Amino acid sequence: MTISILGSGNVAHHLVRAMIQNTIQVKQIYNRSLDKAAELGEANHIEYTDDIKKLQRADVFIIATADDAIEELSQQIPFPDAIVAHTSGTSSIERLKGNFKKGVIYPLQTFSKDRYVKYDEIPFFIEAENPEILKALKNLAKKITHRVYELNSEKRKEIHLAAVFVCNFVNYLYGIGKDLVEKEGLPFSVLQALILETAEKIKELNPYEAQTGPAVRGDEKTIAQHLELLNDMPRKKAIYELLTKSIQEKYT
Amino acid sequence: MTISILGSGNVAHHLVRAMIQNTIQVKQIYNRSLDKAAELGEANHIEYTDDIKKLQRADVFIIATADDAIEELSQQIPFPDAIVAHTSGTSSIERLKGNFKKGVIYPLQTFSKDRYVKYDEIPFFIEAENPEILKALKNLAKKITHRVYELNSEKRKEIHLAAVFVCNFVNYLYGIGKDLVEKEGLPFSVLQALILETAEKIKELNPYEAQTGPAVRGDEKTIAQHLELLNDMPRKKAIYELLTKSIQEKYT
Repeated sequence: MTISILGSGNVAHHLVRAMIQNTIQVKQIYNRSLDKAAELGEANHIEYTDDIKKLQRADVFIIATADDAIEELSQQIPFPDAIVAHTSGTSSIERLKGNFKKGVIYPLQTFSKDRYVKYDEIPFFIEAENPEILKALKNLAKKITHRVYELNSEKRKEIHLAAVFVCNFVNYLYGIGKDLVEKEGLPFSVLQALILETAEKIKELNPYEAQTGPAVRGDEKTIAQHLELLNDMPRKKAIYELLTKSIQEKYT
Repeated sequence: MTISILGSGNVAHHLVRAMIQNTIQVKQIYNRSLDKAAELGEANHIEYTDDIKKLQRADVFIIATADDAIEELSQQIPFPDAIVAHTSGTSSIERLKGNFKKGVIYPLQTFSKDRYVKYDEIPFFIEAENPEILKALKNLAKKITHRVYELNSEKRKEIHLAAVFVCNFVNYLYGIGKDLVEKEGLPFSVLQALILETAEKIKELNPYEAQTGPAVRGDEKTIAQHLELLNDMPRKKAIYELLTKSIQEKYT
């Protein structure tokens, strides 16, 4: 089975690495910017191009681009017997336009180019327009990870929404923590042990059981003190108020 | 140097373990509930009591109780030449009432009894009413961790506030993620790799540089889709809206 990757961003980088680690043959990399295609291709000894017309036949084409590029790019893939799959959490399988076998392979992770990631723990969510394609994509994903799930476009959107809460929004709260400790002349690293333990804990504990802090224990005195500290930071104060209220409503 | 611990909750449990691991002698445990004092004392072969009058002389008394108990409890410690330190992030050193040497030793971590914790990475924040007490408490903390900081009561409150954002609020967002994936019939564990990587990432990356997601990339289409998915969940929707708006304001 040969794979070609369209796109050269964070997801593409990690897919290429995951495939190479698992001896899956990556045939070609396409990116509209030749520099970026070259960077990914040369680092991994893979042919690359910025000319979509030079795309060679492969068994599977994986589109790992921005969501907006999926439609136009997929239209230009001229291999009716190949599988074309995008990697987007939010885009429906219908965004693939063209005459080929359609599917989705969505890895649920936050990817930064320079981070080492354990691919075998990343959940891959698969969708396909028929059982044969589904099986092929599942088999491909199973070479990379033991967590492979079938999921349709509607449900995939919900998973992506969950990811926004536990990753993007959480990261923003880390930023607020950073601001607050640095304001007191302390390095952000003083929060690291706490951040890691909070994340590790929920491997064993349901987060609703693991909830601690002034909101859940109804400690109005501490809450009032915190709101006063936030008086000159209206954005942080609004977030504190809303999350505290939400926790209190949840637990009463 | 002998230490006695007042309180038998999560913080007390972990302080006792941290001390035993570092061959610091724990002399006695006091708790108003005998059962709880016994549980902690017997597990660690330490004398225990529920009678404050039976408190024996030690070099340092550490009050690891609820904030509200600090005042009353500290008043009853009859050893003027001993150090008495509380462990609270939010309580000022002034909450210690009584005739003894006053200090604070605040470990910044979320403690659950059954979790294994690496004590040498936990920051301990120390405050004391004079340099001699400060030195003694710093030396005690340094036996447990390499991260010891001096910090006054006002600044400690800010650090505690930061902890509420990166721990309590983050944990609540994990709960929202759990609700959303379980709604689609998937186990919470599908989010674990993402949660851990989000937490690990900020060891290397500034969270403001690590920020990803629809809000920071101005992906209004996905945001609108997410808000629609949240239509019948007003609490989650309000949080999504506020955090998205805050991220967008921060990055523009």
